[in-house]
Amino acid sequence: MTEHPDLARLQRRLAEFAAARNWQPYHTPKNLASALSVEASELVEIFQWLTPEESARVMDDPGTAHRVTDEVADVLAYLLQLCDVLGVDPLAALAAKIERNELRFPLPGAGDRRPDA
Amino acid sequence: MTEHPDLARLQRRLAEFAAARNWQPYHTPKNLASALSVEASELVEIFQWLTPEESARVMDDPGTAHRVTDEVADVLAYLLQLCDVLGVDPLAALAAKIERNELRFPLPGAGDRRPDA
Amino acid sequence: MTEHPDLARLQRRLAEFAAARNWQPYHTPKNLASALSVEASELVEIFQWLTPEESARVMDDPGTAHRVTDEVADVLAYLLQLCDVLGVDPLAALAAKIERNELRFPLPGAGDRRPDA
Amino acid sequence: MTEHPDLARLQRRLAEFAAARNWQPYHTPKNLASALSVEASELVEIFQWLTPEESARVMDDPGTAHRVTDEVADVLAYLLQLCDVLGVDPLAALAAKIERNELRFPLPGAGDRRPDA
Repeated sequence: MTEHPDLARLQRRLAEFAAARNWQPYHTPKNLASALSVEASELVEIFQWLTPEESARVMDDPGTAHRVTDEVADVLAYLLQLCDVLGVDPLAALAAKIERNELRFPLPGAGDRRPDA
Repeated sequence: MTEHPDLARLQRRLAEFAAARNWQPYHTPKNLASALSVEASELVEIFQWLTPEESARVMDDPGTAHRVTDEVADVLAYLLQLCDVLGVDPLAALAAKIERNELRFPLPGAGDRRPDA
Repeated sequence: MTEHPDLARLQRRLAEFAAARNWQPYHTPKNLASALSVEASELVEIFQWLTPEESARVMDDPGTAHRVTDEVADVLAYLLQLCDVLGVDPLAALAAKIERNELRFPLPGAGDRRPDA
Repeated sequence: MTEHPDLARLQRRLAEFAAARNWQPYHTPKNLASALSVEASELVEIFQWLTPEESARVMDDPGTAHRVTDEVADVLAYLLQLCDVLGVDPLAALAAKIERNELRFPLPGAGDRRPDA
């Protein structure tokens, strides 16, 4: 480990953090999925009354930028802890998903509209 | 990069994927935060009627395991795309958060109850 | 019961519906709150890639209008079932909340910006 | 209307409250659906680390009971405001949904497991 934090290492630190505090009984997959969705909603809350244009400038205000960064960290923390208790490799899951999406949304006929909209 | 997918590389592939399909106008921070929370809820949906014990065995069924893995990928995909448009480094954000949490929940008096419960 | 359905009567029908199917063990407050949030996210999903203007015209398309109406019903159904198991009167709760909000957001200095934004 | 608050009347009060504060520009269907899901998540947050049994006793503590009641009011408030801007009748939507569910989950073969689990 040099300067940049590594995903697997952060995941281990989160597991050790929870274990040292005896939080494992609370960290069922069901509870961690709920906690993840609660943190994702705290991100949504920051944007809920903003216009699309205002939402694009949200990092200009230091206080809001800190809040956004903090909620991003919370979402990632619960996602990694959920993956840990489930034995899911998040990077492998995402790589597989991107490959499936490349088949599902092929380039030629993609148009300029999100096909899932 | 050899065998294991790398977070930054997956983030770049997601950005290229969206750009190639002209999806950037849809990918405002506000919309991506909403999409992230919708995917997190799809994870919750898998667990919503399960007991804590059933939720711990969710990966035993191959169909459910695939569904869980797929939703984990979707959550991570939108989180990385949100970070990309906001200029947030998710790993640095999480490392900073873990450090703050180590101060906020010090070990000696932690007890066996989640203090934020 | 004359022509318009009544909230308390719908709440009773939902309770009878769940009881007749032996669903009460699944209908803990925790599970019903999760189910409510999952349905709320299904509403959000309909709007997630739309501009504010497009979102205002969502009922013009009969298929989307049906989907919106169906998700509204699901949210209300879980909210009423949650209130039932908790013994909360939703109309009294809302009336009390409106009164608190009238004190919290007094008219004179309200300005033209949502103060909670 | 005598003593008990009436749904349609509360919906009108919410519309007048928002209009008096010039909040209508913020109250697009998209934003109100987001706000609804954020409030639903605040309900979930109360239950996220509780066991099913603890969640059933949540109203025993006056502070938690107040918090639950307040979040129920917020969910109902945004649901009614969303219905108002969309022109959806929430009670008619729910009555129609219950009728569809009675066909979808017929009584004889219902078993003792939630069929949508």
